[in-house]
Amino acid sequence: MTAIKDRRTIRKYTSKNVSDELLNGLLETASRAATMGNIQLYSVVVTRSEEGKKALAPLHFNQPMVMNAPVVLTFCADFNRFTQWCEQRKATPGYDNLLSFINAASDTLLFTQNFCTLAEEAGLGTCYLGTTVYNPKGIIDVLKLPRLTFPIATITLGYPDECPEQTDRLPLSGIVHSETYHDYTKDDIDKVYEYKESLPENKHFVEINSKETLAQVFTDLRYTKKDNEAMSVGLAEALKMQGFM
Amino acid sequence: MTAIKDRRTIRKYTSKNVSDELLNGLLETASRAATMGNIQLYSVVVTRSEEGKKALAPLHFNQPMVMNAPVVLTFCADFNRFTQWCEQRKATPGYDNLLSFINAASDTLLFTQNFCTLAEEAGLGTCYLGTTVYNPKGIIDVLKLPRLTFPIATITLGYPDECPEQTDRLPLSGIVHSETYHDYTKDDIDKVYEYKESLPENKHFVEINSKETLAQVFTDLRYTKKDNEAMSVGLAEALKMQGFM
Repeated sequence: MTAIKDRRTIRKYTSKNVSDELLNGLLETASRAATMGNIQLYSVVVTRSEEGKKALAPLHFNQPMVMNAPVVLTFCADFNRFTQWCEQRKATPGYDNLLSFINAASDTLLFTQNFCTLAEEAGLGTCYLGTTVYNPKGIIDVLKLPRLTFPIATITLGYPDECPEQTDRLPLSGIVHSETYHDYTKDDIDKVYEYKESLPENKHFVEINSKETLAQVFTDLRYTKKDNEAMSVGLAEALKMQGFM
Repeated sequence: MTAIKDRRTIRKYTSKNVSDELLNGLLETASRAATMGNIQLYSVVVTRSEEGKKALAPLHFNQPMVMNAPVVLTFCADFNRFTQWCEQRKATPGYDNLLSFINAASDTLLFTQNFCTLAEEAGLGTCYLGTTVYNPKGIIDVLKLPRLTFPIATITLGYPDECPEQTDRLPLSGIVHSETYHDYTKDDIDKVYEYKESLPENKHFVEINSKETLAQVFTDLRYTKKDNEAMSVGLAEALKMQGFM
């Protein structure tokens, strides 16, 4: 409970290595996560080499965590292993489709979150790189991911060399709905985002970027329509390339 | 650690209720999970009423957990709330695309797994219903999910009234790859699935279904190509309907 409650993203790591024994123990326990039909539709690629990290770094927009962390983990949706097993056992697999991708991606993310909780409980720090699905084709190429696999999440891992402030969260009432989804009124939206907008660091972001509102920092700079649409095209192409669409 | 290590799916629950206080505390702590740009791209719909459960049950193929659990939680990807905030703050959102769906689904699943770990640590039992993405249109309709939201995961929740055996997992060597993905040889596949195939309960499944191999139980009965392809069409239609494709 404490590991989850006190959780913060760790982007700076000490030079202390993470042993294979510890890493494997955490991955093994993480695999207790729920999984579709107990099939375990995921694989994880462990990058420790400088060469491997150098190849991945630009695909994650050169965020410094990739080079600085002792371990980079790429969690991949994987219907390749299961499909090969089926083919070797006179069974006809049918997992080259969108539903199977979503099933495998779900399995992968439950496993990923379980791993992060266990790693943090063991005193390690993690950073979740959402950039994994921005440049899937590059990652597929670097990690040599075969058909029916797909990179879903990247975690940089190491012993923490910082303890940043915890970030804010929306009030729970803003994310929980009773019995059916109750769409937000204008007043609800104001209330849900009031605290976030009041934070000095967020006011500072608005100011230094010469924006009128915090929302504009997101839409004009961090997550733009143009980028999202371009990356959606790349994502769909990568899904086709890997046999899921 | 113990909550994750000893985890098993719980499908039978006692009549003891789960208080709103406990549920909300767990959901609030779960929201410490990593989230894209700290936006929290998810909502959760809490179903407690008999009427609500009756409406959901057939969409989950009438699995008895839906009616028997005191609480059914539908975790939804949600770009609606954020988009409304942007529109109310003179910002131009651009989240009606595939990448944004994947981003929101990822946020949702990390939150879901965090919730399950916390619930299990608090002595509750959970069952993850993968059927959520099999019938998204029906669930969208029942829960009145607006555009730019999408049901991703359903969890039935209650105090355990059973303690089933833990299910098997693949050997860790079968899911971890060093530096790059090393595709499986025929021999690797045999080794990875050897233990699973040796289990008496799996041999029994093969026998009672008059199949030749365990893989055929999956491909011919549980997760067929025909069903996956039909449900992929429904899934794509639902993603279009909700504005993500």
